[in-house]
Amino acid sequence: MIHPTATLLISCPDQRGLVAKIANFIYANGGNIIHADQHTDFAAGLFLTRIEWQLEGFNLPRDIIGAAFNAIAQPLGAKWELHFSDTIPRLAIWVSRQDHCLYDLIWRQRAKEMAAEIPLIISNHPHLKVVADQFGIDFHHIPINKDNKAEQEAKHLELLQQYQIDLVVLAKYMQIVSSDFISKFPQIINIHHSFLPAFVGANPYHRAFERGVKVIGATAHYATPELDAGPIIEQDVFRVSHRDEVEDLIRKGKDLERVVLARAVRLHLQNRVLVYGNRTVVFE
Amino acid sequence: MIHPTATLLISCPDQRGLVAKIANFIYANGGNIIHADQHTDFAAGLFLTRIEWQLEGFNLPRDIIGAAFNAIAQPLGAKWELHFSDTIPRLAIWVSRQDHCLYDLIWRQRAKEMAAEIPLIISNHPHLKVVADQFGIDFHHIPINKDNKAEQEAKHLELLQQYQIDLVVLAKYMQIVSSDFISKFPQIINIHHSFLPAFVGANPYHRAFERGVKVIGATAHYATPELDAGPIIEQDVFRVSHRDEVEDLIRKGKDLERVVLARAVRLHLQNRVLVYGNRTVVFE
Amino acid sequence: MIHPTATLLISCPDQRGLVAKIANFIYANGGNIIHADQHTDFAAGLFLTRIEWQLEGFNLPRDIIGAAFNAIAQPLGAKWELHFSDTIPRLAIWVSRQDHCLYDLIWRQRAKEMAAEIPLIISNHPHLKVVADQFGIDFHHIPINKDNKAEQEAKHLELLQQYQIDLVVLAKYMQIVSSDFISKFPQIINIHHSFLPAFVGANPYHRAFERGVKVIGATAHYATPELDAGPIIEQDVFRVSHRDEVEDLIRKGKDLERVVLARAVRLHLQNRVLVYGNRTVVFE
Amino acid sequence: MIHPTATLLISCPDQRGLVAKIANFIYANGGNIIHADQHTDFAAGLFLTRIEWQLEGFNLPRDIIGAAFNAIAQPLGAKWELHFSDTIPRLAIWVSRQDHCLYDLIWRQRAKEMAAEIPLIISNHPHLKVVADQFGIDFHHIPINKDNKAEQEAKHLELLQQYQIDLVVLAKYMQIVSSDFISKFPQIINIHHSFLPAFVGANPYHRAFERGVKVIGATAHYATPELDAGPIIEQDVFRVSHRDEVEDLIRKGKDLERVVLARAVRLHLQNRVLVYGNRTVVFE
Repeated sequence: MIHPTATLLISCPDQRGLVAKIANFIYANGGNIIHADQHTDFAAGLFLTRIEWQLEGFNLPRDIIGAAFNAIAQPLGAKWELHFSDTIPRLAIWVSRQDHCLYDLIWRQRAKEMAAEIPLIISNHPHLKVVADQFGIDFHHIPINKDNKAEQEAKHLELLQQYQIDLVVLAKYMQIVSSDFISKFPQIINIHHSFLPAFVGANPYHRAFERGVKVIGATAHYATPELDAGPIIEQDVFRVSHRDEVEDLIRKGKDLERVVLARAVRLHLQNRVLVYGNRTVVFE
Repeated sequence: MIHPTATLLISCPDQRGLVAKIANFIYANGGNIIHADQHTDFAAGLFLTRIEWQLEGFNLPRDIIGAAFNAIAQPLGAKWELHFSDTIPRLAIWVSRQDHCLYDLIWRQRAKEMAAEIPLIISNHPHLKVVADQFGIDFHHIPINKDNKAEQEAKHLELLQQYQIDLVVLAKYMQIVSSDFISKFPQIINIHHSFLPAFVGANPYHRAFERGVKVIGATAHYATPELDAGPIIEQDVFRVSHRDEVEDLIRKGKDLERVVLARAVRLHLQNRVLVYGNRTVVFE
Repeated sequence: MIHPTATLLISCPDQRGLVAKIANFIYANGGNIIHADQHTDFAAGLFLTRIEWQLEGFNLPRDIIGAAFNAIAQPLGAKWELHFSDTIPRLAIWVSRQDHCLYDLIWRQRAKEMAAEIPLIISNHPHLKVVADQFGIDFHHIPINKDNKAEQEAKHLELLQQYQIDLVVLAKYMQIVSSDFISKFPQIINIHHSFLPAFVGANPYHRAFERGVKVIGATAHYATPELDAGPIIEQDVFRVSHRDEVEDLIRKGKDLERVVLARAVRLHLQNRVLVYGNRTVVFE
Repeated sequence: MIHPTATLLISCPDQRGLVAKIANFIYANGGNIIHADQHTDFAAGLFLTRIEWQLEGFNLPRDIIGAAFNAIAQPLGAKWELHFSDTIPRLAIWVSRQDHCLYDLIWRQRAKEMAAEIPLIISNHPHLKVVADQFGIDFHHIPINKDNKAEQEAKHLELLQQYQIDLVVLAKYMQIVSSDFISKFPQIINIHHSFLPAFVGANPYHRAFERGVKVIGATAHYATPELDAGPIIEQDVFRVSHRDEVEDLIRKGKDLERVVLARAVRLHLQNRVLVYGNRTVVFE
């Protein structure tokens, strides 16, 4: 657990011998697999797998593993990512005025539920600087309006580079991020306060109330150019009744948003999420 | 429990003294309230209540209760329904080819989970006659196509009248019932195989699979002219993962459909559902 | 919502006319009922109700309401409590080393999800003083061992009096509170990290792992002299699998503990919980 | 899906190269793996895996596969089972008076949710013969009392042999099966109407009501000599409230019992359950 591991996330046209070839690569080099999971999407003809092994006793040096595996992957037509468990990803959390997901993510990082650093908080409002200060995290207030969006997004990008950010978490950031921005920085997880695809867009709790639903939900997904349409990582729901006013839905929803976003970020940070098409495989 | 009760379902512009006036009516006539529940929709300025009391020892004869209560209700501007627990409602179950909800409803009725009679099954296919025969229920095969719809719906109506049906349960009846029919027979509960308002209309499981959701659902609602848009009585959901193919969603969904429809029908039969606007109050 | 309300919680031997008598009392004095709920436990022959009405326009002054209602209650043999919504209860949170429930309760109080003041944190360890300082709450470190328990509990009591505490929340306080203490200060809510009555006592997650359960839970209950046997206010559960090690159960359990405890405390603070025998009626 | 597959369930002391050796065995013989999952219990030092591959194109004849794999398994100290998807297991369902699980299992088998034959129903009461007749299944009424238990269990065993039964499903069979019987026929799945380990033994719903729980559950597990203590396959729960009388718990519990038992039986029939110690790995 404390010993570093390597993880391969692989997607590949389905064919005979894939498990054997990948497992042989690790075994031949002295690796001990501690977690292996696979999935075949028969309709898409696609084989997807996640393999994690201990680096201790592994004969290939870290900087060679990628090239060595590529020699196996290329003939198979495989796409792959390689991650090391002791490379700690750096998160930027983007917020607006609501603080519940922000507090929750910071608490989980401090409690070591997530292996990550959180050096940067960005907001279009100044209100949550107090939380950033409380935990000693840099806070940048970048107001957005329809006229300054392109220029402010340039500042966003600059900050992400400056802080060497690996993942942006939109923790109730109530602004639409532009397609252009996403194409330049695609590693973005968003929390949407409905069980998508119901209630895409603004004011989902108000619309849930008006529709008279008996269940509300929250959805964590990767951001894509189309609003609230990216690959879903995690969803959960909560029962409500006629007794719940809109403000009750909002309050109960916050508990959902916290846990759904936290689970999605944790799964992503553990390299358990593989995206293909508009779907995710989550190797739990 | 075995002694008969009367139940009033009342909706009324909110004003002082409503609980007192209604409770006094029952107390003054010697009634013993065994269940009372109320809800105020402050935005709508509406007071909604359900009161159930024992008829034993109640001084008003049954056929007078309505008129007597109306004298109180009218000055308040209240709408009300009066039901007696020993009046057993008569159900028609409409099906197509799938038998899971049909079997389930029949089993529950036989197991006395629902106080109802089921004298009639209607289907646009002949396949489930065998189930009807198994339990000695009349089965009418009324095929539907775009040319004969109006005329077949006339037959439907005639059958409902002939069998003195109080409630139609669309138990996976894969046809759209016309607005005209609904206006003539509005007591219809439908089960839709998604968590509405997601995936209105055809093939919700296929669309859920394509969207890559992590949760599927089912919704029981009253039928209204707009498709899958009527007041929701009950919803529930089930977790799914990338391992679930469309056929797994369909299979898991059947378990949801069965319990969600059964709960909604039972709540309706116990006069626990009050519709106002496009919403329901469910007095559980 | 912002206007103050009064709430009566009443339990009473079941008899005719109870709803009428109570509703008349409020109506006759010009009160507007905004929430009324009742429950009859037929086996126990007990009627239990919660009634909340607006004080604005109510003709009785606050300090008279109790005496006036008692004139009605006494002949009925009723027990009752009267609460005013603008009397803000004072909480003491007791913790050991784990901070998740503490942070959560403080956050909810600041977010106005709970109408309460939190002037006091007590712990048998010094670790969480930092959290208390962060939010400007007094922190008292009172170490406990088998020799000093009686004397330290005397200090506890003194602090509760000094801070005028209405409710103690055992937010993962990993010590047994003595019967003697509970008899002197009975308003105590505890969170236990299992779905009681499974895994009473120490190390429930380890025992859940060993038993190989597929579901873990958390239970909020009032403390009573018998360990983990008090009236249950709220419970919830989470699915687990063979992939979850004990530390995963602990981590997932923390999310349960937070929400289950918070819901129970909120329900109690809103005077929605009525205890009778070893059971609760929760008027949601 | 329609092409037959072979499945290996393997448990083995953890060591390097296990995945590679097993995958190579299948690849070298021309097999196409369609499902592979593994789990390592680090505390127990145990590697557990399930591998399923298509028999079409596999070079080893069926009757040789076991011996061939054993040559690999023995040096590793592995225990293993080999199953073929077109070998349809034969179930005996044991019931007492309640019919809900019986109907449900029969319906699922007819609906092809479970690949199994159900040639035999055994009961200690005559009541459910009518269900057996309805579906053309042999029914044997074998009354049990404390004096005739050993002799009646001998009849049970004889019937299981005569009907070539692979799995006994105790579908609300309200009798304790003796240790002696279990040692002779260990393939038994039982449904218990509580979330074990809460409420072991008789009358769990009555005891749940008395304890005032807010959640009820059901547990499917393999029968072992100790009552309700065998390896758990599946559990699920349902929320209840003070409004639920014992009979409501029983009614709501039936819905749980049906789905929990059905899921467990299906998982077992698909060879997805691996027992070790008193725990299960469920390869979903």
